[in-house]
Amino acid sequence: MSFFRSRWVQVPDGVRELDPAGVLPAGFRAAGVAAGIKPSGGLDVGLMVCDSSEVTSAARFTRSGAAAPPVLVTRERSRLDGLRAIAVNSGNANAATGQQGLDEAARMQGAGAMAAGVSEEQVAVCSTGVIGVPLDGRKVLSGLLECAKQLRPEGVDDFQRAIMTTDAFEKRAALEVDLPGGTVRITAQCKGAGMIQPSFATMLCFVQTDAALSAETADLLFGVCVKRSFDRVSVDGQLSTNDTAILQCSGLSGVKLEPESESEIRFGEALDALLRQLAIDIVRDGEGARRVGRVVVRGGNGPNVERAARAVANSPLVKTAIYGGDPNWGRVIQAVGMAIPDSAPLPVDIAIEGAQVCVAGQVVDHDPEKLARAVDRDEVEIVVGLPGDGFETEVFFSDLGYEYVRINAEYTT
Amino acid sequence: MSFFRSRWVQVPDGVRELDPAGVLPAGFRAAGVAAGIKPSGGLDVGLMVCDSSEVTSAARFTRSGAAAPPVLVTRERSRLDGLRAIAVNSGNANAATGQQGLDEAARMQGAGAMAAGVSEEQVAVCSTGVIGVPLDGRKVLSGLLECAKQLRPEGVDDFQRAIMTTDAFEKRAALEVDLPGGTVRITAQCKGAGMIQPSFATMLCFVQTDAALSAETADLLFGVCVKRSFDRVSVDGQLSTNDTAILQCSGLSGVKLEPESESEIRFGEALDALLRQLAIDIVRDGEGARRVGRVVVRGGNGPNVERAARAVANSPLVKTAIYGGDPNWGRVIQAVGMAIPDSAPLPVDIAIEGAQVCVAGQVVDHDPEKLARAVDRDEVEIVVGLPGDGFETEVFFSDLGYEYVRINAEYTT
Repeated sequence: MSFFRSRWVQVPDGVRELDPAGVLPAGFRAAGVAAGIKPSGGLDVGLMVCDSSEVTSAARFTRSGAAAPPVLVTRERSRLDGLRAIAVNSGNANAATGQQGLDEAARMQGAGAMAAGVSEEQVAVCSTGVIGVPLDGRKVLSGLLECAKQLRPEGVDDFQRAIMTTDAFEKRAALEVDLPGGTVRITAQCKGAGMIQPSFATMLCFVQTDAALSAETADLLFGVCVKRSFDRVSVDGQLSTNDTAILQCSGLSGVKLEPESESEIRFGEALDALLRQLAIDIVRDGEGARRVGRVVVRGGNGPNVERAARAVANSPLVKTAIYGGDPNWGRVIQAVGMAIPDSAPLPVDIAIEGAQVCVAGQVVDHDPEKLARAVDRDEVEIVVGLPGDGFETEVFFSDLGYEYVRINAEYTT
Repeated sequence: MSFFRSRWVQVPDGVRELDPAGVLPAGFRAAGVAAGIKPSGGLDVGLMVCDSSEVTSAARFTRSGAAAPPVLVTRERSRLDGLRAIAVNSGNANAATGQQGLDEAARMQGAGAMAAGVSEEQVAVCSTGVIGVPLDGRKVLSGLLECAKQLRPEGVDDFQRAIMTTDAFEKRAALEVDLPGGTVRITAQCKGAGMIQPSFATMLCFVQTDAALSAETADLLFGVCVKRSFDRVSVDGQLSTNDTAILQCSGLSGVKLEPESESEIRFGEALDALLRQLAIDIVRDGEGARRVGRVVVRGGNGPNVERAARAVANSPLVKTAIYGGDPNWGRVIQAVGMAIPDSAPLPVDIAIEGAQVCVAGQVVDHDPEKLARAVDRDEVEIVVGLPGDGFETEVFFSDLGYEYVRINAEYTT
């Protein structure tokens, strides 16, 4: 099956999928080991290293006020534009752990530097797993030192497994992209399936390329692509304490992406498609999700457009309706009305899978049975029109079904 | 069983519960009939009339931008401080019905006036039920005319049933309140069980008293009590298009509530306890809820205190944990962190059922098994401390379990 399997992701010309197993771009090595943090005994410590001293990088983090120590340490102590190494553990988020957690995250950064043979400020640290449990730094340290011995391009497979918690499937890709200046590779490893499954979880995404980007270009492209992907998805409207996304560029392909060049644009399109598909994969994996929804909202007031899209995507009523294959657009207008208070009567247009059901706030004739058949599919699209023009946004979201309850109610921490 | 059964409601001295069956304060008559709007054939049109020309009243409505025609008509065409009659139907919300819906709501107001023998602007209209389906005004009209024949104090029982949709139990009460100036009665009929069960639902609450209040006093007291009750509950974080709460005062007890008098204060306390218990009953009925949660947040920044309380109450992760009897406070700190972005590290304190689990953002020693036993009860309390002092708020919320999914996914409109 193709990695690009959502109808909502356009694959640009010149992009080829590779089997991601064992593949990293030139200049990267990785490893993953079992260090005893996960009770299951699975792989739980990973290391990703770029061997190029010319590395450039960009990073984005959770905005949570309860952001975990590894996020705080990376944000404050690392050179985010020149990250050589990423040290990561799963099975414990090192969150709500206070000063002790900050100390452990700093030690993890030091251990990552030692293992990768780089300086501390060139190392990012990431953790994912249960919250509010002190992280055993000795396990992380010995895991990272073991990783150091195993670093190799094929180690990406173990690295991918080491960042996962209870993802139902791997979220990774390897692409070759033909650019005017030559061919580059982009690879990515991602984890995330909602906020808790079964304990506290997170989304992490690590992207590597051998294209040569200035740090400014890397930050610009990655920032835009993250905004269009991981910032536009919701499993359950919850924000993790540990979300982290990092792009590293080794430059070893020799293909330079000059600002505003055709190469930069086409690389950006490939990165955009990659991150959008990974983001949709997170939603698809979203804690027992059956279907993926996409809500598009258009209108003349930007904040209202954003609020309405979030309200529809996060409405448990809309989510359960999608799960049930029920084109219950009354729940959509309810969510929109909630998002834009004190504005009644609000002339809202609603279309589901191309069928107009509501115009200017009023039901219009439509065929309910045809509509019900249209939403009985893997991907369901809702388009909402608000008054005016000029703004459009989208949010991808998972439905809400029994599995979500089972996962989140019956597993205890 | 006592009406006042939540530990979070203090019953003031001098308040006695009566069996609410057939009881209305002096000056009120009611009726409810089956008019063929509900497919089940159940009671679906109700009329509440105050026979006193000295009536005073107060009303509060949904703030939804998709507020339904009956809300718009009542808000714009009725004298909200002198409502003699309330005409209500269930089975159809007359929402998302546009100009046709506005016309039907206005006709319903006229029919209510005819049935009650009062003028149109003295009539409030309310609808609850499925959204986006034109309301058959002829059924409402004939129902109201039939109600006119049946108006009597004992008709409150039929009225209560006529306002319900799929509430699992009746939410009503009759109180006698001893005041310095004499004894008054307060009765209330309420419906609501989340936003959809199985179709679109709503909360409605009608309160009657024979105390003599000025319209200003009625509005002040009712406004404060609604803010402390129906404004502080969440089943699923969703806002209905049709929410309406109305207080009517006949004055026929002859007991006057002068502003700032002892009588006014004690009446206000009774009204407060009444509405809080009804609000908690809505949460308890919340679409398959097993437990009711109460989150209390304190701190020095009012908007942050409010945001944090709403975020915890509406978090599907917190809700599923409560359902599972899991004292998963990591989900609480996650929700608080989401509510107050860009503030890390945020020194959050968390206690669950009196046991401190987190201080200044850091886990503290506690007994997980004792904590688990403490949350395995009908009502679970979470207290969150943010930096500073001066603000405190609370939100009551239902948990999220299989029944919520079943109700909202398997029933289709």
